[in-house]
This record gives sequence, structure tokens and C-alpha cells, in this order.
Amino acid sequence: MARIEADADAPRSDDVPARDAAAAGRDLARIVGEAHVQAPVVASELLQDATETRGLRGTALAAVHPGTPEEVARVVRWAGEQGVPVVPRGGGTGYSGGAVPGMGPEGANAIVLATDRLNGPGELVPEAWRGTFPAGVTTHDVHRRCLEAGLFFAPNPGSAEACMIGGNVATNAGGPRSFRHGSTRAWVSGLEAVLPGGELVRLGGSARKSVETLDLVGLLCGSEGTLGVITEVTLRLQPAPELALPVLAVYADREAGLNALGYAMACGVVPTALEFLDGGALRAAAATFPGGLPDGAAFAVLVEAIGTEEIARLEAAALAEAIREDALLVREPSTRAEVEELWRWRDGVSLSVVAARGGKLSEDVVVPAERLGDALAAVDRLGAEQGVETTSWGHAGDGILHATVMVDRDDQAALEHAAEAAHGLLDIAQELDGALSGEHGIGLVKREAAERLDPAVLAAQRAVKDALDPRGIMNPGRKLPLPPR
Amino acid sequence: MARIEADADAPRSDDVPARDAAAAGRDLARIVGEAHVQAPVVASELLQDATETRGLRGTALAAVHPGTPEEVARVVRWAGEQGVPVVPRGGGTGYSGGAVPGMGPEGANAIVLATDRLNGPGELVPEAWRGTFPAGVTTHDVHRRCLEAGLFFAPNPGSAEACMIGGNVATNAGGPRSFRHGSTRAWVSGLEAVLPGGELVRLGGSARKSVETLDLVGLLCGSEGTLGVITEVTLRLQPAPELALPVLAVYADREAGLNALGYAMACGVVPTALEFLDGGALRAAAATFPGGLPDGAAFAVLVEAIGTEEIARLEAAALAEAIREDALLVREPSTRAEVEELWRWRDGVSLSVVAARGGKLSEDVVVPAERLGDALAAVDRLGAEQGVETTSWGHAGDGILHATVMVDRDDQAALEHAAEAAHGLLDIAQELDGALSGEHGIGLVKREAAERLDPAVLAAQRAVKDALDPRGIMNPGRKLPLPPR
Repeated sequence: MARIEADADAPRSDDVPARDAAAAGRDLARIVGEAHVQAPVVASELLQDATETRGLRGTALAAVHPGTPEEVARVVRWAGEQGVPVVPRGGGTGYSGGAVPGMGPEGANAIVLATDRLNGPGELVPEAWRGTFPAGVTTHDVHRRCLEAGLFFAPNPGSAEACMIGGNVATNAGGPRSFRHGSTRAWVSGLEAVLPGGELVRLGGSARKSVETLDLVGLLCGSEGTLGVITEVTLRLQPAPELALPVLAVYADREAGLNALGYAMACGVVPTALEFLDGGALRAAAATFPGGLPDGAAFAVLVEAIGTEEIARLEAAALAEAIREDALLVREPSTRAEVEELWRWRDGVSLSVVAARGGKLSEDVVVPAERLGDALAAVDRLGAEQGVETTSWGHAGDGILHATVMVDRDDQAALEHAAEAAHGLLDIAQELDGALSGEHGIGLVKREAAERLDPAVLAAQRAVKDALDPRGIMNPGRKLPLPPR
Repeated sequence: MARIEADADAPRSDDVPARDAAAAGRDLARIVGEAHVQAPVVASELLQDATETRGLRGTALAAVHPGTPEEVARVVRWAGEQGVPVVPRGGGTGYSGGAVPGMGPEGANAIVLATDRLNGPGELVPEAWRGTFPAGVTTHDVHRRCLEAGLFFAPNPGSAEACMIGGNVATNAGGPRSFRHGSTRAWVSGLEAVLPGGELVRLGGSARKSVETLDLVGLLCGSEGTLGVITEVTLRLQPAPELALPVLAVYADREAGLNALGYAMACGVVPTALEFLDGGALRAAAATFPGGLPDGAAFAVLVEAIGTEEIARLEAAALAEAIREDALLVREPSTRAEVEELWRWRDGVSLSVVAARGGKLSEDVVVPAERLGDALAAVDRLGAEQGVETTSWGHAGDGILHATVMVDRDDQAALEHAAEAAHGLLDIAQELDGALSGEHGIGLVKREAAERLDPAVLAAQRAVKDALDPRGIMNPGRKLPLPPR
């Protein structure tokens, strides 16, 4: 959605007087120390996230960086007493505006609660395949610390360098390896969190499995900060694989590529990742493709096998065999440097697509895996009807398309037209029995679209939200459609 | 808990007059047809579950067997209008009384809603690794139908022949293979369910991953019927493995066995199952052990590798190598018949332990995996202090102990003493940072024990329950502690 719509979506709170930032700052400084409060918040990156390219930028009464879970609890209690909305924030890499404070008048009454100071060393228990990390540790550091202890945390969202494990849990982040290994939720056995009433609690715990309560751990995973602030996560890990081997094949047309995806699903091996890129994405990222793309490349399939060296090689060979038919090129990197180069290229596809025209509007829709071809054809039709250039890539095995309208960022009319067209991507997902978001969440940018979900489901969701946050202070206006006024 | 306690725990509803079973029966017959209602319910197995051995047996106003999800919705709406508690029931194989209607006066006002007629063929989409099954299909049939389509559903609770997939989801059932493959929740992408207000909804769906709403799918998983009636489940499956190879090793003492568990965790392979049995369980099941147990067998470790034939053999060999040190015996079955014989023996351990003395009281407590040795030592101490015979077996990798007091079923004094001692098993789990239940749930039998959980967590859980079921009709008195009166 372009800027104009984001503003229109913002919760109106004209009836709430703007607060005194200096007074709020003094209150918050008493909790976290003066050095860790900004009030007012001016020209700060804390007011935006990766949706900046859509014009999403908020305002806030204050930003606060608590140093301990107890300080988080005190800040949330203060906010509850004051009726001040709390916008929890991890690495700010979200694509749905979930961590962007309110735009317009609402922002003047909200505080950003950044978890970046909750970044201690955590604790690893290698013999039990377990790790506990404060919420503000980057996902990259979680991966690194696990590997140093011989352990493996599979979820690998593209922004791992910058995103934080608390944010990954709050959004139930995915990534290529979710196909085999599940999303972040599947790796979480316990959470420490501050609930909307300011209670600091432990949900779940160090045991790998528990059915002691309703699944409150799962409820917080993916709740986008609407049900509490996650302060620490306990992960059930696996032994570090000796080897991770990707295989990439390129095809002259989409049909051959879709067939290859089918062969990969039928070869008896469960790859860690099963990715696709269509022609537009390939062309946009062609310049950086390791070794150069063949002429006529119109679709690519990327798979990965991990395990002990012997098993990774066996599985990668079986997958390569499965996707080889009709391929123009099969790339099977075997050294660490080649492997890293290929993944770096894949991780850079989104930026390459942006670079091609200066801007893009993506929706991370998801469809049942067998409908991927139908979804790609529908995206083509949408582009032709609307006269916009489209492309898609994503996690084929999970049916997740990063369906994208490419656009010139400086052309305001084109941007607004593209935003209109991007709405059609959501229609496609729903027509194909899919969902509005496979990974990035609802945040601010899809909350209006979410109004089209089953009213009974929305009512149940709203009942849960209101029950846990009766004052409505935890990231209001995100994840769920706005309540009827 | 012995019979006397179960009665004391039952929700008292002395203030609610017992209803007219015949009138209720006529109302229900108008919804589901006369042939599918029992009112009153007399001497029916629908009044008990696998906790029968603990004396748990309820009474009910009526039992009803809806034939469609719409009929389920109409029955729940009728119950809401009448203020009649609904006890959903799958295969009745639970160990926590979750599907046992109320004992005492409460039962006279509750209906059992059996899902056994929701047992159509379901639908499999092999190319997308997906299956949809009505709630009343047995887990065994889910396994079988999946295999026939080349697919695999990993969760394998011991009662698979009799339990139903809806009940598996409602309890988030586990089993040996949960170690690698996660509990039932990890396999569910969508649910059809009737919410407490009688709305028939679809939560999640056919896409393998979605973050479109709060995780209502996860919330229903493991909710033990307190948040709705599951009528259909959509499973994300995997390709059927070519081979499943267990390896069992027997040791002369517990220390050697615990070391072997550590070696298995450190060998770089993730087994599908990592089980243990202590000396008491081994002795109880010795007579049926394939090929006979060696003298002095005091601990056993059972692992399993699955995959393509080549990979299963590689992984099984690595695991066998890891657990071989200090073993009295290593059994590596390789034919299908030998493999099945070994698992049949393992599945029969619980019954063998019952047979040894005529009765047992088990708690399925869970501890962090590295505390398993501490937990076993604490169970020993408890047995010595209380003068009762104890034994344990379970899912070592997940830290789940089926910790058991063996008892003579016909000795009422001994039964009551054993129940007292069994309470101590829960203390052990909590002292070791574990949980009251790893698999079987809270149901009726642990709801009093659950009162000791963090009040803030209990309050959050109660808020969710009350928000979704404001009339309190869905399996009241289960899963959560009773509300304060």
C-alpha cells in the first residue's frame, strides 16, 4: 500500500489529547535510566521498518530501551496506567509495519519499546539440544552461538543479520528452511514475556514438550506484539549438520520448472528448502548469479539438503537427479565458498528486484502447494490487466509467493496504480484457498485486507485479544482488523 | 488419583437441577436422528476412558453421535441454549479423564458428544504432501491411508489402533516419534471446528504455513475440548519413508544407559525416537522381549532411524555405534517382521507393567532432557520413602517419563497410598524445572495439581477460556483448574 493508504488506515484517536513527551520521558527515565529514553523521538530509525519503501513512517511519544525483563514489565505497567499504546520492536526488519508506531495523531500517544538491550549471552545446553536467548539477540548471533556449541537453529529469514530472535518469535518468522524444519514456532519450547497487564511470566519452559496449559507459547508466537512483549526465548535445537548442500536448476519455461518442483516433492527426500524464482526475478538478479545465467532462463528451482556429510551428499544427489530433467543448467556447489555464494545470491534477490526499477510492492501470499502454478498464472493475468510488470519468487514447497509489482519509486501515479494492483495479489491468494500472509504477518499494512476473513474467526481472535489486553495497549491496530467503532 | 479423589475433584453443581434425560434425548434426536442418541446413558463405555483403572467413570444426561460437522454445530448450539456441558469424545483412549463426563451430580447435566460417525474417507493430495481427515478417523487409519498414497504422518501414540485423529489434535498427542517429528500440532495446518458458540469455522487451511491470524489452530490443539469440537483436520505430511529401523541396547546399570542416551544425542544424527526403559519396566516386560533379555538387564535404550533405505541404514548404524559401548546386548532388527515385533513389544510395556502387580498409577511428567537421570533418582527415592515399587520408561529425548507406582489393584488401602505417592511424581517434575504433563494432558485428573502453576499464567489461560466460551459449556472442569467459587 502506498503512503496515502497507510495514513488512511491509521487508527484515528482525535479524541485523545496528545501527551506531554517531556513528562512521559521523565517517568520512563525513572524506570530505565535517562540514557535509554528518547522523548520526543525525532528523525529516528525507530519510527520505521522495512516497509519504509511503502512510505510507512510513524511518530511516537517516546522510545524506551529497557535493560532487563523487569524493566520491560515496569514500562508496560506504566503504559497501562497511562493508557499509552506500546509498540514492541526487535530488529525493525518487518515488512508489514508491525513495529512502526502510529501515524498521525495516534503516534503522539504511543511509545516504542525496543528490545535491543536484552542482548546478553544466553545459555546453551548442548547435551539437551537447548538454548535460551534474550529477545534482543540477533538471529545471526543465535545461529553463530548455536554452531559454536555444535547445535543448529534452522529458521533462517533473509534478514538474519539484523532481525532479533524475539521479533522472529513474535512474527513466527519463516525462511527457506521452514519447509522441512517448520517456522520459528516449531523451535520454541518456552518464552519469558511481559503480558499486557505487566506480569512477567514464563510460558512453557526447558522441557521440549509440555501439555500443561493451553498453548500460550504458540499464541504469543506470531502475535506481532499484540499479546505481550517477549523478553527471552528457549529453543529446542538439533545437532549442527556437517554440511548444507544447495542445488539450483534453471529452465527455459515455467512449465518445466513446475514439473521439476513436482519431481523434487516425489523423490522421497525431504529437502530443507524448496525454492523457486520466476523469469522476472531471475532477470533482475542475473548480473550477480554465480557463473552467469544461460540465455533464456525463465524459471529456477533451488533445493537444499543438510545433514552429516554422507547424508547431505546422498540427499543432494537424489534431489539433483529429480530436478535435472529439462534443465538448461544444474549448479551443484560443493565447497563452502560456492555454497555461501549461491545463498548470498538468493538472499539478494529481493534487493535486485527493487534495483531493477527503483521500487516494488510485494505481498507474501501463500497458496496450497499444488496451486503454485495457478497462482503464478493469475499473477501474470493481473499484470497484463493492470498494465504493470510483475514477478514472483519464494518458498515453493510451502506455497509461499513473494508476488511483486515492480515500479518506478519516483513516479507517484505509478506507485498508486501499483498499490491498487497489489491488492489483486491478495484476491488471488484467497481465490486459491490460500492465506493473506505466509510469513510477514498482517501488521498495519494488511489489517484492512484481514477484514475479509470469516467474521466468526475474526470474532474469536478479537475475543482472545480483548481478554488478554482489556485496555488495548499492546500494539493496538496491528495483526487484527480494527474493532468496529 | 484413586477413585475417592476423583469424586472430590468433580465440579459440584448441586444448585443445578438434574435434567430430564428423555426430553433432552428428544431434542437431540431431532438434530442427529433417533438412532444416534442415547438418553439416558447406561452402562456405556462412553462414560469412561483409559483412566478407568483409576476408578474414573462418569454419568451423563445423554450421548449423541452427530453424523456431520453441521450436526455437531447444532448440538453445541442446543447445549448453549440449555446451559448443558458438552464433553467431546474421540477414541476414549485418554489417560487424564478429559473425555469422561462428570462424576456425581454434574454428570446428570452433561452430554457426551462422540465424533465416531465423522469417519468419511477424507482426501489426500500426494503431490502437495497434504491430507484432510474427519475427526473420527482412527490414527491407525490415518497412517494407513497416508501410506497407501505414499505419504507419512509421523505422530504415533501407543493407542493408534483406537484413538481418533480429532482426539490426537485435541490433546496434541505425542508418542515416540515426536522427538524428531514434533507432536501432532507440528503436523496440522488447518482445522474445521465448532466453537463454543456453535459457529462452524475453518482455522488455518490447506496452505502449509499462514500467519494470517493469531494462532487459533495451535490454541485448539491440546485444548482438550475446552475451546471447541474439532470436526476435521488438515495435515501437512511427508513422503513415506522406505524403511524404519529401530535399534535397542540393554545395559547392566542405569548409569551406562544414561551415558548411551548422551552418546546418541551427540552422534550427529537426529533419531526419530529416543526411548528408555528402566529395570522395573524391563523386568515386567521381559517375558515378551523378542529373543529374550540377558541376565542383569537394568536399563534399555531404543532408537529409530527412518528414511530412504540407504539413509535409514546409515543413520541406524551411526546410532547403534553410539549406544553400543557398555551394552550387554544390541538388537538391530532388519526385516519388517523383526521390526514390527520389537515395536509391538515396546507398545505393550505399559500393559506388562500393569500385569506385573495388577495395577499401576502413572504420571506422564516431563523434565528438561539433561535432568532425566536426576528424575529417575528422585523417583527411586520417592519409592523408598513411601515403601512403594516404582518404575519408569518413556521418551528420553523429550525428557518424558511415564513414572509409575506399581500396585495391587484389589488392595484399596494400597491404592490410596499409591495415589498419595504418585502426587510426589508431580513434585519431582516441578522441582526439576519440568511440567506436570508431557503428553496425556491435564483432563480431570491433574486439574487440582495444575492449581500450583504461576497464578499469572493461570489467569491468562482462564481469560482465554472465558473469552471463547463465556457460557462455560465446552468440557468444563478439564484442562484448567476449576475457577475459584
